[in-house]
Amino acid sequence: MLIHFRDKMEIGKPEMNIGLDRIYAAESRICKIDGENGRLYYRGYPIDVLAERSNFEEVSYLLVYGKLPSIEELSRFRKELREERNLSSGTINMISQMSKRNAHPMHILSATVASIASEDVDINDRSDGAELRRSVKLIAKMASIVATIGRYIGGEEYQAPDPELPHAANFLYMLTGKSPDSFQAKIIDLMFMLQAEHSTNASTFAALVTSSTLADMYMSISSGINALSGVLHGGADEAALKMMKSIGKPENANEYIENALASKQKIMGFGHRVYKAYDPRAKILRKYMEELEGHSNPDSKTLTEIALEIERIMAAKKLGEAKGIWPNIDFFTGPVYTAVGMPGYLFTPVFAASRISGWCAHIIEYRKNNRLIRPLEYYSGEIGIEYVPIEKR
Amino acid sequence: MLIHFRDKMEIGKPEMNIGLDRIYAAESRICKIDGENGRLYYRGYPIDVLAERSNFEEVSYLLVYGKLPSIEELSRFRKELREERNLSSGTINMISQMSKRNAHPMHILSATVASIASEDVDINDRSDGAELRRSVKLIAKMASIVATIGRYIGGEEYQAPDPELPHAANFLYMLTGKSPDSFQAKIIDLMFMLQAEHSTNASTFAALVTSSTLADMYMSISSGINALSGVLHGGADEAALKMMKSIGKPENANEYIENALASKQKIMGFGHRVYKAYDPRAKILRKYMEELEGHSNPDSKTLTEIALEIERIMAAKKLGEAKGIWPNIDFFTGPVYTAVGMPGYLFTPVFAASRISGWCAHIIEYRKNNRLIRPLEYYSGEIGIEYVPIEKR
Repeated sequence: MLIHFRDKMEIGKPEMNIGLDRIYAAESRICKIDGENGRLYYRGYPIDVLAERSNFEEVSYLLVYGKLPSIEELSRFRKELREERNLSSGTINMISQMSKRNAHPMHILSATVASIASEDVDINDRSDGAELRRSVKLIAKMASIVATIGRYIGGEEYQAPDPELPHAANFLYMLTGKSPDSFQAKIIDLMFMLQAEHSTNASTFAALVTSSTLADMYMSISSGINALSGVLHGGADEAALKMMKSIGKPENANEYIENALASKQKIMGFGHRVYKAYDPRAKILRKYMEELEGHSNPDSKTLTEIALEIERIMAAKKLGEAKGIWPNIDFFTGPVYTAVGMPGYLFTPVFAASRISGWCAHIIEYRKNNRLIRPLEYYSGEIGIEYVPIEKR
Repeated sequence: MLIHFRDKMEIGKPEMNIGLDRIYAAESRICKIDGENGRLYYRGYPIDVLAERSNFEEVSYLLVYGKLPSIEELSRFRKELREERNLSSGTINMISQMSKRNAHPMHILSATVASIASEDVDINDRSDGAELRRSVKLIAKMASIVATIGRYIGGEEYQAPDPELPHAANFLYMLTGKSPDSFQAKIIDLMFMLQAEHSTNASTFAALVTSSTLADMYMSISSGINALSGVLHGGADEAALKMMKSIGKPENANEYIENALASKQKIMGFGHRVYKAYDPRAKILRKYMEELEGHSNPDSKTLTEIALEIERIMAAKKLGEAKGIWPNIDFFTGPVYTAVGMPGYLFTPVFAASRISGWCAHIIEYRKNNRLIRPLEYYSGEIGIEYVPIEKR
């Protein structure tokens, strides 16, 4: 007997929440986004103050431990991070092999993070203390893994870390083989801070769904990386850079914008699902980008001029006040990263190596009152269909 | 200025949905679970009819394409699956290397699935046709990967597939190096069918969250595997087997159960979040398990006797009628898998190699009306905390 389930149930169809836009899936004390006013807080501290006065190690401590560290606490945390910077020969070999197979950096990153679980001797200890140690390990190693992926894709060998350098500067050293100057070091540290946390976006939520089954932290972070690889999530900064490169020089910007708007194309790096005011991270990054105009790298100088010209043209259209369309963080990332020698294909992996601190903080927080995340789906098909043998179909 | 956000907002605190238990996150035509009556339908077909009359290839076609295949369609589908059974030397090498590093089978599986994306020449083609081809590739290769993980952990080398065997029987051949007899072939095919789909559980949902960012299918499946690795999701069958092994012989069952119930311990393999009646998959599996009593493998014979004795003791307590606590599919898996030579550490990976069909079906279905899955969280911390310099903390 065939029942038309849909017809039968349409009247009683439950409220649907595709996308979960208005659903509160967690209570959290980690991050507050004030989209209306263009403000962002990590553990209650405004992002602009942290960007100016803090550094990635301190911000990571703040996110994961929930408070700013004392001098001793920060010193110990930095030491722990330094001790976890090295990659094992097994890990290096895996990155080398996968890059030879032309794997995408995000696929290599996801696979490598899943693989380093085997180096965790107390993997079955899920106490808070063990998860905090694991967070330190992951924060340290993610940056080393991403740098090493960049090395092998660029045809180079593993660059061992420099224990004298701070976290972000060491990342750049492991990527380029050169110690960054103080401006480059500040820029990369800033990028790590600005991308460290942003509430339950899709990647953090993928990590939480995974962690809620009591999967280990490596598996949960791997899911976060997987979700970040999608173009609706990570990748917008690389797309904005490509747009600027295709424009080529500031004089071409106007024609590009007019054509794009006329054909209803999106201008990459403008508008944001949450921010209806100027993205506070973009505001900070813009300031540093302006300093690049006098910088030595001609590519980043040109890109900066193009970015500022696009912004000027867009501002004249007053889309900000009218429709809440302002530049977001992704718009300024390309010129800034180009100045420190970062290739476009590493933008999203570096995003992951920054967001690791926020992911770990969320996993530890949710685990305290863990509940398996398992939504319902509304079945709109038929039930009880008769099975017809294949020769009679 | 310090604002106590929580105090300010407590009155206006929104409805929380931790766990998403009552939230409809998707509309679907793939699977209907009738927990009250203990019924399960794939695309409208009752699971008991499929288990009796169909096979894993046909069930996979049904799930992914949405209808039962004609003779020609099934023949082509089988051929495509056979052509994708082989693993590349890069993939085999990765499995070998990770098993030498003592990685857990689920970590190897997750990493390997992420890695085979590099062998997909049209990875950026996200048309329905390309996603269907990708599903065939994944359904075929997941079984080969899991079998090969079992080989290397067991100290053996890669066993190339046998093109003459059906999908599940070939899996067993690649794992053991021996062609299964007809009873073993039926048992493993049955297990693949029974585990192929079960609505938006946590692993399917993790795959959907990832896919909703437009991450590729390999990344989405990797997230599904990651979520399945948690003990609240996969792994209950292995735990039930361990319980039966620790009981040792049927005469010890009563004392074990009495002690467990007295100390409020969970009896592994009993009770289910969705089924309040007898799990229909358990009912099917039980029937096949009973046939094992006369089977040649002494281990599976003893385990079967223990399982039946536990069920008899539990039934006498009438927990089914009173509290809806019945045996679920995980309870009978151990004895049945033992009969076909499957080690406990492969139970969850084989679950993944079966569920791959359901994961692919859900990804393709959700993508048709894709919406980024991004819930809210309720911020209960403070905002605007003053940044105190580290030397004054």
